[in-house]
Amino acid sequence: MSKKKYAIGVDFGTESGRAVLVDVATGEEVATCVHPYADGVIGEVLPGTDIRLPPDFALQNPADYLETVRVAVPAVLREAGVDAEDVVGLGTDFTACTMMPIDKTGTPLCLKPEWRNNPYAWVKIWKHHAAQPEANELNRIARERGEEFLDRYGGKISSEWLFPKIWETLNKAPEVYQAADRFIEGADWIVLQLTGEEKRNSCTAGYKAIWEKGTGYPSDDFFAALDPRLCHVVDEKLSRDIYPLGDRAGGLTRQWAEATGLREGAPTSVSIGNVDAHVSVPAATVVEPGRMVMIMGTSICHMVLGTEKRIVEGMCGVVEDGIIPGLFGFEAGQSCVGDHFAWFVDHCVPWEYYQEAERRGLDLHKLLEEKAAQLWVGESGLLALDWWNGNRSILVDVDLTGLLLGATLATRAEEIYRALIEATAYGTRIIIETFEKSGVAVKELVACGGLPERNKLLMQIYSDVTGREIRVAASSQAGALGSAMFGAVAAGKAAGGYDTIFEAARYMAHLKDQVYRPIAENQAVYDQLYAEYVRLHDYFGRGQNDVMKCLKALKQQVRD
Amino acid sequence: MSKKKYAIGVDFGTESGRAVLVDVATGEEVATCVHPYADGVIGEVLPGTDIRLPPDFALQNPADYLETVRVAVPAVLREAGVDAEDVVGLGTDFTACTMMPIDKTGTPLCLKPEWRNNPYAWVKIWKHHAAQPEANELNRIARERGEEFLDRYGGKISSEWLFPKIWETLNKAPEVYQAADRFIEGADWIVLQLTGEEKRNSCTAGYKAIWEKGTGYPSDDFFAALDPRLCHVVDEKLSRDIYPLGDRAGGLTRQWAEATGLREGAPTSVSIGNVDAHVSVPAATVVEPGRMVMIMGTSICHMVLGTEKRIVEGMCGVVEDGIIPGLFGFEAGQSCVGDHFAWFVDHCVPWEYYQEAERRGLDLHKLLEEKAAQLWVGESGLLALDWWNGNRSILVDVDLTGLLLGATLATRAEEIYRALIEATAYGTRIIIETFEKSGVAVKELVACGGLPERNKLLMQIYSDVTGREIRVAASSQAGALGSAMFGAVAAGKAAGGYDTIFEAARYMAHLKDQVYRPIAENQAVYDQLYAEYVRLHDYFGRGQNDVMKCLKALKQQVRD
Repeated sequence: MSKKKYAIGVDFGTESGRAVLVDVATGEEVATCVHPYADGVIGEVLPGTDIRLPPDFALQNPADYLETVRVAVPAVLREAGVDAEDVVGLGTDFTACTMMPIDKTGTPLCLKPEWRNNPYAWVKIWKHHAAQPEANELNRIARERGEEFLDRYGGKISSEWLFPKIWETLNKAPEVYQAADRFIEGADWIVLQLTGEEKRNSCTAGYKAIWEKGTGYPSDDFFAALDPRLCHVVDEKLSRDIYPLGDRAGGLTRQWAEATGLREGAPTSVSIGNVDAHVSVPAATVVEPGRMVMIMGTSICHMVLGTEKRIVEGMCGVVEDGIIPGLFGFEAGQSCVGDHFAWFVDHCVPWEYYQEAERRGLDLHKLLEEKAAQLWVGESGLLALDWWNGNRSILVDVDLTGLLLGATLATRAEEIYRALIEATAYGTRIIIETFEKSGVAVKELVACGGLPERNKLLMQIYSDVTGREIRVAASSQAGALGSAMFGAVAAGKAAGGYDTIFEAARYMAHLKDQVYRPIAENQAVYDQLYAEYVRLHDYFGRGQNDVMKCLKALKQQVRD
Repeated sequence: MSKKKYAIGVDFGTESGRAVLVDVATGEEVATCVHPYADGVIGEVLPGTDIRLPPDFALQNPADYLETVRVAVPAVLREAGVDAEDVVGLGTDFTACTMMPIDKTGTPLCLKPEWRNNPYAWVKIWKHHAAQPEANELNRIARERGEEFLDRYGGKISSEWLFPKIWETLNKAPEVYQAADRFIEGADWIVLQLTGEEKRNSCTAGYKAIWEKGTGYPSDDFFAALDPRLCHVVDEKLSRDIYPLGDRAGGLTRQWAEATGLREGAPTSVSIGNVDAHVSVPAATVVEPGRMVMIMGTSICHMVLGTEKRIVEGMCGVVEDGIIPGLFGFEAGQSCVGDHFAWFVDHCVPWEYYQEAERRGLDLHKLLEEKAAQLWVGESGLLALDWWNGNRSILVDVDLTGLLLGATLATRAEEIYRALIEATAYGTRIIIETFEKSGVAVKELVACGGLPERNKLLMQIYSDVTGREIRVAASSQAGALGSAMFGAVAAGKAAGGYDTIFEAARYMAHLKDQVYRPIAENQAVYDQLYAEYVRLHDYFGRGQNDVMKCLKALKQQVRD
């Protein structure tokens, strides 16, 4: 069967990177290798130093990305027993906005001895939250100037995105800003490393850098209004050349061909960079409007396609060519889902449950799921607001915090656990309803990511709460599969790949047989609970009672 | 030293009874014996049967009260090596409203074979909450009729009190109502058993049975408006003869003299019954206005004296002679304090804390206190409403439920633990402020009960939040000591006791040296947090958002 062709997808996640080698004809995932980052997420102390980081920092070491390619790609080739000549394409996806300052040669400043002790020289990853003051200021000025781009991002630019992060560096470490030849997304940087080509992708540019096909970036005037030193930030520190998803970035450099065992140059096509969530959409079989993909893990990204640009309250963004070329990609999100349950299990589970889990050889999540599944809808009397990590959509407010209401002395851990699951489901429902109100149809849900595999109760609750059928992507590594699909598209049909992502999706992406369908009697109770959720959501989230912000301000004040 | 005289106090608590033998001259507690009730609190199944109880039931077996006297009184005599002839008085105190139906001979119906399978024939203890529908109806009718007594009880009669409990029995088990010769408080029943005298006390009558010195009970008209069958409930099932605290009920019967080893008749004076919380006030040295006693355990009772009747929003009651003869006794309360922390420790503490506690030989509460004490005020960003068991004062609403707000993924168990302590302190502050607004002075706090011994952090937080000095009663068993004091007063000076409770308090009651004083910088932050607490308290507690009730109704609906 030497005629079989393969593509490799490399997915750069938050704690680790993962390579998967995929059969281009069928989508079969032949081999996988996960490589944990040596330095992981850096939140306390700069590696190899005793330099403590300010609050809300979340950094990474770019050397970990390179090591992932060096280790994981040869590993999947080896494991699959596949010849390099049968690997036609390689695609990558990254967390975003995950950005870094680089020098003229593309070397991240933090890898240079003279900068390694400066936290601002390192990679700021997506969940770095220290640029909130800059984001607030940017939003204020944009509103005052009536900048139209705000509408494309639900009315607010997130502190997680590119320009607040760049501005933070300029404010806190002007010497790093000065020394940076460019700032670049990890998604584009890894492609630059592998191919020698700096070809920035339309997905990160559109969703994270306020870029729009046709109109480009915000004006220099706008940037000057933020800070005169930022006036030419785009020309001086970024690039106006943006490439649509599905494009080929180039071939593998000699250095990386040697390091990976793949072929140098044209025979191994490397696709334009992409974002982990967005690349999962075609991997979940979705290349058309009406079916929303939920990438469910520590957080949820909600992705849906449309044929027209629509303005939706509090969405993360709408980007033409942002997910699938030729369509508008809409993104919304919840910042705390799996993280929520993990927090709960780490902090709030009674001793005897640990013992029971140990005795029965169960994971604690499984035990809680089992106990929570025995509850009737509404039986606990609990209601939560799922804001343990702020609210990404539709309020776009990182200063909102979690709320649990309805506790009594009879409240048990599994009731709280279930209430937290339900709260995240209400969060998804309010996102869906907001899309539909704005004319973006969401008829069915397709789930991928780690949670759907692990928690069937959660999936049923989502179906009951949203009143929609949910299907589940067959792949448990949709990001890496999607990257491999784009790698196959970069190679093109002539080389054994595909000419379009639509074709690739038809053959390489699959759904499981299982379908979650709403249960009418649960739906009826959830409708009542959801109405209460919406009322609390609006009361605490839309400024009627700013207690969460007051408490956060006080917390900051006390800690200072 | 055979001239020394002693009094015995017997305190009938929720889970156990306790006798203490006290030196009348000094208040020294010479011997103590705690006797756990064999049947404890009966909430699930009637003892010796498989009869399941309805929700919200909390019963007791009156045989456990008798057994407490039989076991604990001889035990303290033995332990102290004291002659019966040197014991001049015996006082008792009880939880309340803890009530039962009895026959003509004073025998509780549940102790008679023909009634023992009927749950309504048993003792309903204070936290029996199944009479809420009757309480709601009683309050509605009283409001419609403009009954003035409502004002004396903060605007609402609690479902925990006597008439809702009697009415519940009439509604659910008319045969028990019919068969009952009388209904009686445990406090009066135990005195009836010990002395053969039915002398109902002014404390339970005033605080739990809507009785007032001078005006008596509500009118027969009012009871007829509730239910025609209740028209003559007072004359048929209770008594209009009410005796002030400090009175002597009688001497010990032969039967009980034999059972306890004490002397029969006059030589052992038995005082009028009393309530555990109220009897603690003189034991905490308080016999004058201006100093509030907080009996801090699973819940808090707040007691303060005044020279005039004042109407205070949401207080539990104002009763002349209700605490100290000749003064108005004001009572307020929080239904969930120690219970709150116990719930938290049972349900929400992470595994590694259990391990740390075990390793260091610490109680989990101690470990959490230690960790929580290291936090700055306001540092956690958390705020809670202390309504895990409803709100007793000042909202008087058992359908309110707990709320925790401000959680993030970084929230740790000790932060929640501290937030719960703080919430109960805010609850106390709002009670104090409500008293002061109505003209009842609260200048200083005196704490007694189990919590002040165990949790110094809690005491400091209460001082910081309320802005008041807190002293602590020397006795760790203020209820039993107070009963012994009233026992000494029943005996009178001629017999080696005292003529008044004021005298008894001067010699027998003491404070510890330690004083908790507010720390100015903590106070400043707590003032801000308290303002937020009040806002949430009013929003959820005063009808702006009835989500807690909706959830509770839904819970009921789902469970039915």
